[in-house]
Amino acid sequence: MTTTTRDDPRSRRRSDYPVLRPVPLRWGDVDTYGHVNNVVHYALMDTLVNGWMSEQVGVDIRTGLSGFGVVVETGCRYFRELHFGRTPVLGLRVEQTSRSSVIYEVGFFVDGAAADEGPAAVGRFVHVYVGHDTRRPVEVPDQVRGALRPLQADREG
Amino acid sequence: MTTTTRDDPRSRRRSDYPVLRPVPLRWGDVDTYGHVNNVVHYALMDTLVNGWMSEQVGVDIRTGLSGFGVVVETGCRYFRELHFGRTPVLGLRVEQTSRSSVIYEVGFFVDGAAADEGPAAVGRFVHVYVGHDTRRPVEVPDQVRGALRPLQADREG
Amino acid sequence: MTTTTRDDPRSRRRSDYPVLRPVPLRWGDVDTYGHVNNVVHYALMDTLVNGWMSEQVGVDIRTGLSGFGVVVETGCRYFRELHFGRTPVLGLRVEQTSRSSVIYEVGFFVDGAAADEGPAAVGRFVHVYVGHDTRRPVEVPDQVRGALRPLQADREG
Amino acid sequence: MTTTTRDDPRSRRRSDYPVLRPVPLRWGDVDTYGHVNNVVHYALMDTLVNGWMSEQVGVDIRTGLSGFGVVVETGCRYFRELHFGRTPVLGLRVEQTSRSSVIYEVGFFVDGAAADEGPAAVGRFVHVYVGHDTRRPVEVPDQVRGALRPLQADREG
Repeated sequence: MTTTTRDDPRSRRRSDYPVLRPVPLRWGDVDTYGHVNNVVHYALMDTLVNGWMSEQVGVDIRTGLSGFGVVVETGCRYFRELHFGRTPVLGLRVEQTSRSSVIYEVGFFVDGAAADEGPAAVGRFVHVYVGHDTRRPVEVPDQVRGALRPLQADREG
Repeated sequence: MTTTTRDDPRSRRRSDYPVLRPVPLRWGDVDTYGHVNNVVHYALMDTLVNGWMSEQVGVDIRTGLSGFGVVVETGCRYFRELHFGRTPVLGLRVEQTSRSSVIYEVGFFVDGAAADEGPAAVGRFVHVYVGHDTRRPVEVPDQVRGALRPLQADREG
Repeated sequence: MTTTTRDDPRSRRRSDYPVLRPVPLRWGDVDTYGHVNNVVHYALMDTLVNGWMSEQVGVDIRTGLSGFGVVVETGCRYFRELHFGRTPVLGLRVEQTSRSSVIYEVGFFVDGAAADEGPAAVGRFVHVYVGHDTRRPVEVPDQVRGALRPLQADREG
Repeated sequence: MTTTTRDDPRSRRRSDYPVLRPVPLRWGDVDTYGHVNNVVHYALMDTLVNGWMSEQVGVDIRTGLSGFGVVVETGCRYFRELHFGRTPVLGLRVEQTSRSSVIYEVGFFVDGAAADEGPAAVGRFVHVYVGHDTRRPVEVPDQVRGALRPLQADREG
C-alpha cells in the first residue's frame, strides 16, 4: 500500500499551483529510451522561472534590477515519463522566501491528463539574488518581490 | 548598396512559407554574448520538422511507418540575433523531394516584427528515409508524402 | 561563522570519491551570466554515471542487461561557478544501494584547484532498474553490482 | 559506382586537418534513434573553434580582444552515425579568411577507426568579428590571426 502525506510531492495537483503554463518539448529532449531525458526537466524549470520573472518585472532581469538570481540548489523527483508530442503543463509556486533567496516549486503535468491526476514530476529551484559586481547576496529586488506575490497563494487555503 | 536575388534567403518573407509556427526558446539557449546560440536554431528546426510530421501522420513516426527519417545535411545562415522573451515564429516549406529524401527550408522570424520584415535566419534540413533494420534508403513513406503536400505550395505562385 | 558537519556537502574533498574523471564543458554551456548554467551539471552527472557503467559492464547498458536504469530523483547544490576553459573533475561514489535502486553522489571540482579545496557543486543521482518491457522495478543486474563495488569505498575508512 | 572529387567532403582524411582533438559526447546527445542527434555536431564544432581560440589567444576571447566572433553561417553533412562511448576526434582547419571573417572546416572522425577511413561528418562554421558595442564587422583581431596560422596548413602540400 502506498500512503501519501501532504508533503509527498505525488499528492500535488494542478490546483496547488497559482500559475500553470505549457512549456514545449523539443525532439532532441528524448533520449535513447524514447522518453524525455532527466536533464530536460531542469531546462524547463529554468525557463519557467526566468520567463515568468522577465514578463512580470518589465525590465531585463539580467541587468535592470539591483541584483540578479543565481541558482544555488535544484532538485527533481520523476514519477512518470514525458514524451515529445504531449506538451507538459508546468505549475509554479513559491515555497518560501528570505532576505536574499526564493525557493520555487514546479509541478510537471501531462497536457490532457485528467485535472485530478498527479504530477509526472515535481522540482525545486532556489534562487539567491546577488550584486552585479560583487556577486554577493543582496536583498531580493522589490520588483521581484512583486512578481512573487501571485505565486504565494496558500495551497492550504 | 545591397542587392538581393530571388535565391537570397534574406529576401524570404513569412508569406513564402505555407506553415508558420511559434517555437519557444529556453533560458539556457542564450549564450555568453546574451543572444541565442547558433546551435539552438538546429534544435528548433529538428523540432519543427518532426513535430509537424508527428501531428500530420497520426502514427509514431519513429516506429509506425515503413521507414524513418535520418538527417543527412543541415545548414543555417544567421542574419539577426534571437533573444529569450521574444518567441520566434518558424516558417516551414519543402524545397524538393526525391525517391528517398526531403529537403526542407525553415525561416526564422521574430515574433511581433512587421510582416514584411526579412528573416532572422534561414535554415536547410535534409531527411533521407531509411529502413528500420537495414538503415538503407527506402521510398519516402506514403503518409509522409501526404504530410508534405501542404508544405509544397509554390512560392512563385 | 560557517560550521560544516560531516554531512555538509561543502566538506567533500576529492579523496572522498573513489573515481575521479574530467568531464569537459561545451561553449554553449555558459549562459547569459558568463558561467556554466545550472542545467549543465545534470548533463555531466548523467554522462559520468552512464559512461562509467558502459565501460565497466562491457555490454550495451541499454539493451544488454536484465533491466536498465531510469532516473527517479536528481538534485544538486552549487557552491561556486564553473567556467568554460577549466574542465571540471567529477568525483563519483555510491551512497546507497537497495534491491532495485542505486544512489550516486557526484562531486564537481575545478581542475587545477588545490587538492584540499572544496567542491564547486555536489549532486545526487538515483537510478531504479526496470524491466525492458514492463518498465517495472527489477533487481539491480549483477554486472551493475560489480561495477558499483569500486564506487563504494568507505569515505570514513 | 561512387566517384568522389577533391571537394567531396567524404574524401577528407585526418591528415587534411592540422589540428585533431577528441571532443567527448554526452549521454543525452543520443536521441530516440540510438545515435547522436544531428544538433549535437554543432555544439561540438562551436566548442572546438572557441576552445582552440581561447587557448591560443591567452585572453578572454569574449572581452579581451578588439572584437568577438559571431556566427553567420554553419552547415554539416552527415555520413555515418556517432555513438556514445566512442569519443569522436575532430579535425580543424581554416578554409578561408577575409578582413572580418574566418571560415572553418571541421571533420568528425570516429576514434579508433582506421587512419585512412573517411569522416563520419564534415561541418562548416563561419565567424565574423564584430565590435563589442557596435556589433558591426571589424578586422579579425591580430591575436586571432596568429591563432589561425597553424590551421591554414596547405592540405595539398
